[in-house]
Amino acid sequence: MQNKRIALDVMGGDHAPDQIVRGALQACARDGKWKLSPERIVLVGDEAIVRGRLAHFGGDPGFVLQHASQVVGMAESPSSALRGKPDSSIAVSVGAVKKGAAGALVSMGNTGAVVGAATLGLGTLAGVRRPAIAVTLSLTGKPVTLLDMGANKEAKPQDLVQFAAMGSVYMRDCLGVESPRVGILNIGGEASKGPDVLKEAHQLLSDPSSKLNFVGNIEGNSIFASAADVVVTDGFTGNVVLKLMEGFSSFLLHLVLAELKAHQVDWSAQALGTIQKRIDYAEYGGALLLGVNGVVIKGHGRSDANAVANALGFAARALDANVNEHIVRGLE
Amino acid sequence: MQNKRIALDVMGGDHAPDQIVRGALQACARDGKWKLSPERIVLVGDEAIVRGRLAHFGGDPGFVLQHASQVVGMAESPSSALRGKPDSSIAVSVGAVKKGAAGALVSMGNTGAVVGAATLGLGTLAGVRRPAIAVTLSLTGKPVTLLDMGANKEAKPQDLVQFAAMGSVYMRDCLGVESPRVGILNIGGEASKGPDVLKEAHQLLSDPSSKLNFVGNIEGNSIFASAADVVVTDGFTGNVVLKLMEGFSSFLLHLVLAELKAHQVDWSAQALGTIQKRIDYAEYGGALLLGVNGVVIKGHGRSDANAVANALGFAARALDANVNEHIVRGLE
Repeated sequence: MQNKRIALDVMGGDHAPDQIVRGALQACARDGKWKLSPERIVLVGDEAIVRGRLAHFGGDPGFVLQHASQVVGMAESPSSALRGKPDSSIAVSVGAVKKGAAGALVSMGNTGAVVGAATLGLGTLAGVRRPAIAVTLSLTGKPVTLLDMGANKEAKPQDLVQFAAMGSVYMRDCLGVESPRVGILNIGGEASKGPDVLKEAHQLLSDPSSKLNFVGNIEGNSIFASAADVVVTDGFTGNVVLKLMEGFSSFLLHLVLAELKAHQVDWSAQALGTIQKRIDYAEYGGALLLGVNGVVIKGHGRSDANAVANALGFAARALDANVNEHIVRGLE
Repeated sequence: MQNKRIALDVMGGDHAPDQIVRGALQACARDGKWKLSPERIVLVGDEAIVRGRLAHFGGDPGFVLQHASQVVGMAESPSSALRGKPDSSIAVSVGAVKKGAAGALVSMGNTGAVVGAATLGLGTLAGVRRPAIAVTLSLTGKPVTLLDMGANKEAKPQDLVQFAAMGSVYMRDCLGVESPRVGILNIGGEASKGPDVLKEAHQLLSDPSSKLNFVGNIEGNSIFASAADVVVTDGFTGNVVLKLMEGFSSFLLHLVLAELKAHQVDWSAQALGTIQKRIDYAEYGGALLLGVNGVVIKGHGRSDANAVANALGFAARALDANVNEHIVRGLE
């Protein structure tokens, strides 16, 4: 039986530890389905700091605390952090899942360090060649899951097929999308388009023996037209796309704001901020590292308390849906 | 002496032939530096149709006409179009440059067919291994040129170095940017980041013998912070990025519009359309196919008359700046 506890890296993220601690408190204080009990959350970080912040924000409702003496910086090299900081909050969080003290971990910290520590520490699921970072956007109202958004820097055709399978299981079992449509991010619709690796993946996914609902190649603009529910790409392209969207949305909204001001339209920066937020956190609370033997959620570095609470709810949902069991069975 | 005439593909584009003919008329009617004389423009297309549209829009101010009996459809396979339609308006436009009847060609038609016909028909410039599609964005007020946006589907390190060199010459000589800063589009700033091909390109561009102003790796979000003047990438990534930006901007502006309406802010769809347009045509009138032996401008398929007129002015500017001579000299 998988442990349903969630290890929360209190020290990772641009606004750690305050927004992380507050996020944990929010996750327990909110109403509704994803209200978590404090005993389900393991706060991982410097214990003195964590206790201090909890006291500052009104007391400890009963969290589990796990001390970690080191912190990986946001800009630190992941490989040297993994080697040189065995007691970092990231490493200790991964260790908690490894030992079975938790079933999931949530971190807003250094992406490379989280991916590396989780992959090395937890290993991949049976049958999985490489884990992949899955990001779910709900921009159009319907969720679209894109993967790999940067766990690897390249992908073989077989990796892309596995990404498609993992993404499909996740969409079906966690997000309730029946028979999710799978597309390959490419530069044209025809099977003959793009680099060889994508042509081969197209062929493999088109094979009648494939149980996936493959709809073919998807161009960059079609993501926003809900042309597919799962969009697979290599981690390099995925990461470029993710960062581009981040930068572009921010840039574009500032452009709109300037235009509105120029026309003296009464519309506050705060209101556009709502849209900005919707795009940033349109991720369902964070990115999911699919394929490792444990539930690993990587939230955005600039997450605030609300985003942290969402990520915790997201982790609880993934745990309760037993997403990894489904993936292993789906890949058999 | 290079011929300064511009061959205009009247039959290519979503709104051909009407918006193309009107664009040619506008280019001759506008005020200012980029007003063109009609004798400088060669209208390439079905002569009866071209004459008919000219009559409809108020007469022929003295354009050169060149008959072409065939048309390549926007969704047609470029390779079969190149083989099966030797008298298409694209092929005839390329032929005009090849024969020296024009120095530049402008088409809003099928991208693959334009790139293929130009590369095969005109050949590459001395020293150029592969041509590249360069798109210049002026989003931040300062121009940024990205290449390759899809002329090739992959690139070797040496290709990326050549793209950097061609882009730099273009930025300096056509857009007046002194010592343009060159960046590689990658997933992190460090030299060790990304696929091997980018690491090698990073090494080549960092070599002290390189005369380019190389500033290192650029992440997707930094494009909008003007972190570099020339951003090089392989044609696959570039094309994904370009289409993504197109789809995303359109999607985002509709989101803003809906939000404004929901708050009953008085702001018309038309006004936001101005921003949309600024993004779409933020290309300086079109994409430039750098590296072929002639000036080739590929405008957006959905170009209207104004965009066509801009593309013609853009072609005139590239011709007058002798951009290709500079590129050949720069690569020596």
